[in-house]
Parts: sequence; structure tokens; C-alpha cells
Amino acid sequence: MAEVSVPDISAASAENFSASPSNTIPPGSVGVVSPRFISFTEPLALASGQVLPSYELAVETYGVLNEQRNNAVLICHALNASHHVAGISADNPKDIGWWDNMVGPGKAVDTDRYFVIGVNNIGSCFGSTGPASINPATGKPWGGAFPMLTVEDWVRAQARLADRFGIDKFAAVMGGSLGGMQALSWAITCPDRVGHCIVIASTPRLSAQNIGFNEVARRSIISDPDFHGGDYYAHGTVPRHGLSVARMVGHITYLSDDDMATKFGRTQRAPADNGEFHYGYDVEFEVESYLRYQGEKFSTYFDANTYLLITRALDYFDPSRNYGGDLARALQGVAADFLLVSFTTDWRFPPARSREIVRALLKNKRPVTYAEIDAPHGHDAFLLDDARYHAVVQGYYDRIAAKLGLPERSRTTGVLA
Amino acid sequence: MAEVSVPDISAASAENFSASPSNTIPPGSVGVVSPRFISFTEPLALASGQVLPSYELAVETYGVLNEQRNNAVLICHALNASHHVAGISADNPKDIGWWDNMVGPGKAVDTDRYFVIGVNNIGSCFGSTGPASINPATGKPWGGAFPMLTVEDWVRAQARLADRFGIDKFAAVMGGSLGGMQALSWAITCPDRVGHCIVIASTPRLSAQNIGFNEVARRSIISDPDFHGGDYYAHGTVPRHGLSVARMVGHITYLSDDDMATKFGRTQRAPADNGEFHYGYDVEFEVESYLRYQGEKFSTYFDANTYLLITRALDYFDPSRNYGGDLARALQGVAADFLLVSFTTDWRFPPARSREIVRALLKNKRPVTYAEIDAPHGHDAFLLDDARYHAVVQGYYDRIAAKLGLPERSRTTGVLA
Repeated sequence: MAEVSVPDISAASAENFSASPSNTIPPGSVGVVSPRFISFTEPLALASGQVLPSYELAVETYGVLNEQRNNAVLICHALNASHHVAGISADNPKDIGWWDNMVGPGKAVDTDRYFVIGVNNIGSCFGSTGPASINPATGKPWGGAFPMLTVEDWVRAQARLADRFGIDKFAAVMGGSLGGMQALSWAITCPDRVGHCIVIASTPRLSAQNIGFNEVARRSIISDPDFHGGDYYAHGTVPRHGLSVARMVGHITYLSDDDMATKFGRTQRAPADNGEFHYGYDVEFEVESYLRYQGEKFSTYFDANTYLLITRALDYFDPSRNYGGDLARALQGVAADFLLVSFTTDWRFPPARSREIVRALLKNKRPVTYAEIDAPHGHDAFLLDDARYHAVVQGYYDRIAAKLGLPERSRTTGVLA
Repeated sequence: MAEVSVPDISAASAENFSASPSNTIPPGSVGVVSPRFISFTEPLALASGQVLPSYELAVETYGVLNEQRNNAVLICHALNASHHVAGISADNPKDIGWWDNMVGPGKAVDTDRYFVIGVNNIGSCFGSTGPASINPATGKPWGGAFPMLTVEDWVRAQARLADRFGIDKFAAVMGGSLGGMQALSWAITCPDRVGHCIVIASTPRLSAQNIGFNEVARRSIISDPDFHGGDYYAHGTVPRHGLSVARMVGHITYLSDDDMATKFGRTQRAPADNGEFHYGYDVEFEVESYLRYQGEKFSTYFDANTYLLITRALDYFDPSRNYGGDLARALQGVAADFLLVSFTTDWRFPPARSREIVRALLKNKRPVTYAEIDAPHGHDAFLLDDARYHAVVQGYYDRIAAKLGLPERSRTTGVLA
């Protein structure tokens, strides 16, 4: 398999792999990776009617694009993730990709065979153009003036990225949660460019409850006096209290009730000397300590404007909206094969939401594989090690490889090793 | 049945009923009611080790205490309710008691036969002594210095109230949610004083998830710059943003996902002229409008310190704590008969939590009636009209009346009329 030369991009893993002492790279890792920043100067017309004059996408790639350019996989990320899907960040050896258990040589998404692209969404805060970037019209950070993005806008930007790579059609577009929405949107809006669509722990649209929790998070951020209408960069402030509360409430919805019971239960953090409570509002229970820590940590690295923007994009997503709520009609034009995975204890996007997509696809006679994984970890399960889940995904990618005539799997690593 | 004279208290309903034009009183209503404020000068030693030097309880009563004083029912309230259980507030004709559909002449809790007491918890903001009351030691509002209360503290204060009424034993102690915890605690801590214990939509203890949501609410309030460590009265501020977000997240947990889907779905509040979204952070969806309204309204009448205090009391409640987590052992001494009711779509305190109490009671061979009501309304169902639910409660009170030799039901009104 010959490597195809792609203008201004080379395979990150291959070159960095050798640059790093091999004894620090665990088997199945793509190795040490660095992002590339790819500029797009053609304006992007957005669903909102606004136009983003130009933008940059932060990208990581793993594996090698083959000569036929038919082995490419696009991985779309969820709310708080990035282009750093797999491997060890060159900047920080502790920064492992968010789907490293899924993507790598010999793993479910096997970078020995597939060329995998991780891309940071526009509006995010991990390298692609976002609210903290400089607005070329003012020379200052966009802040509250950054345009609203939708899932469809992200897909359009990603399609341009595919063009830049010379990829006409992805072997698969894949994502979990919001990433799954992007994969679904790819299949709808670019039917000729998606061979297989892999939608994990996702939903065809948010419920009122989902929107309600997002709105709680946004109110918390927007009513923080340090928010300054989104222009806190100029004020030298960060709405960290609001962002912290937003993250706490979000985090609860990612975990199952049972999982929280198992992890924390009613365990006291540091009981008084007599074993009693302290009777105050400082931390009494482990779960409080955990949530506060998660909230505070998040508020140190995540951008509040990005949180607002991405939760709003989640709210807006609803491909059935222009079809009177009929998802089957929205999916009439799709040409991809589908894999859907849901998790029994995911109460954010429960199995019923995935089944809704499955039913709509079956109505359109699309080939669908659906796995409902009995896992205790709630919505977060899509990021975690689970042999049955990873086996389903691995099996599906093996079938894709066989269909496309890609080489046989040469090793098995990761969760299934 | 002769009315027993109770020092400094008379039956609120009887006297006010006649003072109001009868055509404004719907059948089954206890009529126009006013609270009484009853002072207790004996200090109350609290679980926290602190002592409340004196306190006042806001109380409403309906019906007439009989000569044997064996027809008294105590109604305990949940987080944001009060002593105003039934009837029409004399101050405000729109202010109907929070359990008016349950309590009244001919209703499930039949005030033709029972003498019903509604009492506001200490620490609340509806008339009983609380954080906004004057601290006698300083002559200023207690604010952040108000002592922490527990469910057991409330029960002890309520027992003193029963003493004041000359009630040795309640025919029933009853409550929903936090009120159910108080009823359960009554049965445990005052076994000789509770004939029947009615625990609705409650739990023997909060889960980690429950505590997590409470902690989100508290962080939101405490990190509001207008909170001033709880001493906002002195600063002339109200942490209304924090309280509003707290209420929004609480409110979501009171409703079921399905109920929110039915009530709001993804309906847009006021679409743009072209039917599209506005692409911003103002209200787009009905559910956002509803939650913001609920949050903002709440922040105008509820006290933030009370919200903190009551959520903390919820967190602390766990009668099994001193018995190695064994609820059956904690209930070993109870002498009451029990009715438990849960609602299928209540994900805050789901049926499994009620069943836990049922099992622990059965281990102790206590007579238990348990009803699991298939209702769509989530935790809030305990406050709503539901004929099956009200029939269960009414039937149970009819049995109590028969056992105690109270007069037959003379009429049926309310949900079951």
C-alpha cells in the first residue's frame, strides 16, 4: 500500500512514532502525535445566515491513506472533545486521545488498515477557529460575536477538509453522542461520500429534557457576572463559576444512577472526628467532591462560549424538522450502511432514541446493524472499555475492510487483545 | 363530636369558612384559611450540636379535633411547600393549598372526620423561624449563621407541636417526597405517637445522583456574588440568578422525560418570520421559556438559604446510617401501619426506593400497603390529580377511620367525586 501524498499534510503517526522512544509507546497506540492546522480561506455560509469569512481546522491523522483513497475514516467528536482522538500528545505525554481505546494499530478502528482523521469542530476551543480566535474584521477575539454553528455547518466544513485530502468517499464516518449526530448528518447531506455511518450513543434529536439540561448550563454561564456577554476575554475574566456548575450538571447526565451509586454511594469524604457530618455546605459526600473537582477542572481549560455554542448546536439538530418530524423521510436519500450502538443505562440518549433511527433506516431498506450493550456506565459508556461493544465495532470494521478489499487484520490490540 | 379547646389555637377552617362569601368556595374545599404562629421558648437541641434558642411554627389546621383526640393527621411538606396544605389563603384568593386536591371535606383526607395539621418546617421561608428571621443574639437576620436542620430535628419540633395540641398519637402522619421522609422518621423516632405512616414518592435515603443534583443547586446559589455567604439580607441583595438556576435543575428532576416530551416536545416558542430558529441564546424552545419562568418566579419568593438548608437536610437523611446501612434494623422499633405510594415515571425517587422501605417493613412484619401508580408525571405526580392514587389514599383513610371508630364518610368530593 503506497502512501498518497496529500498537500500540506503528512501522516502524523508514522513520522512521530519513530521520533519517540519506543519503550514509552504502549502496543496498539498510534504513538506520539501532533495536530496540523489547515486553513480555509473560502467563506463558509452558515445555517444561521451568517458567514464565517475564513477558518482553520485542527486535525490529527493516524495510519496511511491508500492509493485508492478508499480507506479513510472520519471521527467526529462530542461536546468536550477534540481532534486528538488517539495517541500521545507530543506536548503532554499524559494527554492520551479521547478514543485511544478504539483507534490504533490492531484496535477496533485499525490504523494498520484505515487512514483515520480526527478533526476539531469550528467553535471549539482546542485549535480550530472559535470564539477565542481573532475576528479578522476587528483584530480582537470574536467573543460573543462568534457565529452560531450547527451540526450541518460542521459537516460542510469537514467535507471541505475531505476535499483537501482528496477523499471522495469515506469508508466510514463515525462518532459518539454529538459525534454520532455529525455522522448521521454526513449520511444525509453527503450520501455519496459516506460508505458506512457509525452512530454511537446518539439520538436523532434532543428531547425537551435534554434541551432543559442544556438551558440550565447556559443560564448558569450567561448569568455569571464574569461572562460579560461573551466578551470576557477583553475583560480579563473567565465565567468559571458558571462554567463549573454547567459542567457539574452535564456530568451527572453522563453517568447512570447505578454507576454513581457504585462509584460514590453515600460515602462521606472526610467525616468529623466522631464519624459524624460537619453540618455545613462544604464537601460532605464523595460525590460532591468529585463533581466539584470535575467542574473546577473543566472551567480551567474549556471555553464558556464554546460550551454555549455546542449545547445550542445539539439543541438545533433535528434532521426530521423539514419533513414534518418524519425521520424516515429525512433519511430517504441516504446511501450508507449503518452501525448503531446504544447502552442500556444511558438515560441521556437512551436506546429508544437509537431504535428510532434504526426503524427509520429499515423503512428505507438500508442495511443496519444495531447493538444494544448492557453496560452500567450511562452515556459515558461510549468512551469506556467494554469488550462486547468494542467487538461489535471491530467486527463491523472487519466487514468494511473485506468489502473494500483492504488487507487482512494483521494483529489485535486494545480492549480485545 | 365535640370540639376540644386547644390553647391559643382554634380550627382555622371553621371560622373562616363563614367569613367568606360561600359562592367562592368550591365544594370539598376547607374554605378560607389563615396561619397561626405558635411560639416555642424551650431551646431545641439539633443534630448538628447547635441549639435553636427559641422558634415559632406557622401552622394551619382543618377540621375538628375530636374528644378522644385520636383523629389528628399531620401533613409534612416537601422542599418548597409550607403549612398551607389546603384551602384558600385569606391573604390571597389565588393561593390554594399545595395538597388541596387531597385534603378537605369529603376528600381522600376527609376533614369531616379528621383534624388535619399543616406545619411549616423550621428553616423554611413561609412563616416558621428561618434564616431570614431575627437572631435574638444579634438583633439581625440569622443569614448564613442559621443552624443546619435535619429531618429528625423537624420531627422533634413537630412532636412539641403535637404536645401543644394535646395529641398523644396521630391517626396518621403523612407526606410526599421530603414530607415522606419526615413521616418515616416520625414512625422511627416516635413509634408510640404514629398510628399510620403514609409515605408517598419518597426514599429511605438520597442516592449519589440525588445528592449530585442538590450539590449543583447549592454551588449555583453559593457562587452567586449576591449570596454574600448567606448574609445577603444585610447587603440588600438576593442571589436570584443562582436560585433561579437551582430551581431550573430541580424542576427538571421533578418531571418525567415523557411528560416533558408531551408538554413541550421541541416546540419553538416564537419562531422567526421564516419559521426558522433565531440562532442565539434567547429562548428558542417552549421548554426553555417554561424553565426560565419557573426559575425566575421561584427566585422572587423563595429564600436561598432555605433552599440550601432543605437540600442539605435531604442529603443527610438516612435512618439506616446508624445500623450499618440496614434499613430493616433501623425500622425494628416502628409500631405504625404503613401505606407507601410510588409513581412509575418518578426518576428522582423511583419505585425501587419505595420498595426498599416496603421490604424492610415486611422483614419486621409490619402491616404495609404499597401502591405503584402508573402515572406519566414523574416525581410531581404526588401533587397531581390521579384517581387511582387518590382512591388508594382515600381507601386507606377509610380503613383508619373504621379502626378508630370515627364516623362514616358522609360525602365524597375532590378527584374521586
